[in-house]
Amino acid sequence: MTSRREELASRYFNCTERERAVFEAGIKLGTIYHQFVGTPVAAANVDILERAIEDGVRVQPFVKDVRVSISREALRQKKDEFDYQTLTGNMLNVELTISIDRTTVIAGMDFKPDLRYPLMYVKEIM
Amino acid sequence: MTSRREELASRYFNCTERERAVFEAGIKLGTIYHQFVGTPVAAANVDILERAIEDGVRVQPFVKDVRVSISREALRQKKDEFDYQTLTGNMLNVELTISIDRTTVIAGMDFKPDLRYPLMYVKEIM
Amino acid sequence: MTSRREELASRYFNCTERERAVFEAGIKLGTIYHQFVGTPVAAANVDILERAIEDGVRVQPFVKDVRVSISREALRQKKDEFDYQTLTGNMLNVELTISIDRTTVIAGMDFKPDLRYPLMYVKEIM
Amino acid sequence: MTSRREELASRYFNCTERERAVFEAGIKLGTIYHQFVGTPVAAANVDILERAIEDGVRVQPFVKDVRVSISREALRQKKDEFDYQTLTGNMLNVELTISIDRTTVIAGMDFKPDLRYPLMYVKEIM
Repeated sequence: MTSRREELASRYFNCTERERAVFEAGIKLGTIYHQFVGTPVAAANVDILERAIEDGVRVQPFVKDVRVSISREALRQKKDEFDYQTLTGNMLNVELTISIDRTTVIAGMDFKPDLRYPLMYVKEIM
Repeated sequence: MTSRREELASRYFNCTERERAVFEAGIKLGTIYHQFVGTPVAAANVDILERAIEDGVRVQPFVKDVRVSISREALRQKKDEFDYQTLTGNMLNVELTISIDRTTVIAGMDFKPDLRYPLMYVKEIM
Repeated sequence: MTSRREELASRYFNCTERERAVFEAGIKLGTIYHQFVGTPVAAANVDILERAIEDGVRVQPFVKDVRVSISREALRQKKDEFDYQTLTGNMLNVELTISIDRTTVIAGMDFKPDLRYPLMYVKEIM
Repeated sequence: MTSRREELASRYFNCTERERAVFEAGIKLGTIYHQFVGTPVAAANVDILERAIEDGVRVQPFVKDVRVSISREALRQKKDEFDYQTLTGNMLNVELTISIDRTTVIAGMDFKPDLRYPLMYVKEIM
């Protein structure tokens, strides 16, 4: 991103750098879920879909790293029945690193069996 | 939301209540943008679309209040040409209040002329 | 829609009026599924979400009528567990009427137990 | 796709093979627009996004071929300003071939200057 743009944008924020970094992490996880849930997925395109989601996140501001994996187990179960399905939140496993100046946030989204849904959460702030 | 669910989920978070509240605000703004951009919109359905986006956000955890408005000016400009268009981020104006225990976050998304894009930002943390 | 717009657009089509009407039905069903799957839904917002999807379809060209219902059974099952979930294709039941001049197409999308997925199909052409 | 699934599904259709093929083309174009509009896109990820959209379409039934290109001109114009943007319908250029038994449909979606919006249309039925 251009520093000029970030400089202009930062004037609108009324919070600390840590809080900003956590906010940006939340935006990216909401983006992944609600942009890509519903996408057709099968064994034939699961690898490129993972890479495309990752690369779509990487072009957004403050993303230092991201890893997206889609459950092969979920694909296999369905494959016995039919050819393809559409991406659900339960299939997603994401780890995201946001970096703003001296702050780094590691956040994730993955299915938690005790909650029975895919949780978006803050793993660590450094 | 059920307190049992929130209790279970909170054990996965490694941050303060303020940081959690800001993270939740980011998720909701990312959700609004990436779920609803692309929806067909015209004068005839703009009111119900605003209400449906608001009510969709309200069922999510920790949302105390939300107000969504879609630019009528953008709709009017296009109406001279054609009957309908699809929702873009530039048309959206959102104000969101997240509340977790003693923390309240007010966040927003709206088009900033100096940035020339719709900014998601933290207005205030109380 | 304006007749001027439709007149200009129709010159690009190389098919009969019946085929055009069926094509438009397919577009609308693909739109419903891929625009709205993933939307947060609970007992509190299911009615307005149904109306908003219907009204979003109605602003599109050639839509004479549309009825969208979201499975209350699916919401109830989940409600025992948690507060809200996100819309899936399996919850959707849609009936759509497309009308172009003297042709009317009735198309639908609903979960078929024998197929175990939500089928989009042409019910009748008149 | 499995022939068993298609056999079961075909019983629900009340139209000719040609009409079915055109209907399937409409579904796929509606899917592309409403699933992927809003995705973050920049010079760095435009190639993989094109491939991922194509491969997502290819896993769907009856798709014989598909080519998706995203306007580099649109990306360049914006690049002067900021780092990234989100995909709009106007940037999309799609050509899709649907094949069912002896019927082939070529359909497309691309921005038409005279209409000032991206038109989905039937180019040819063979």
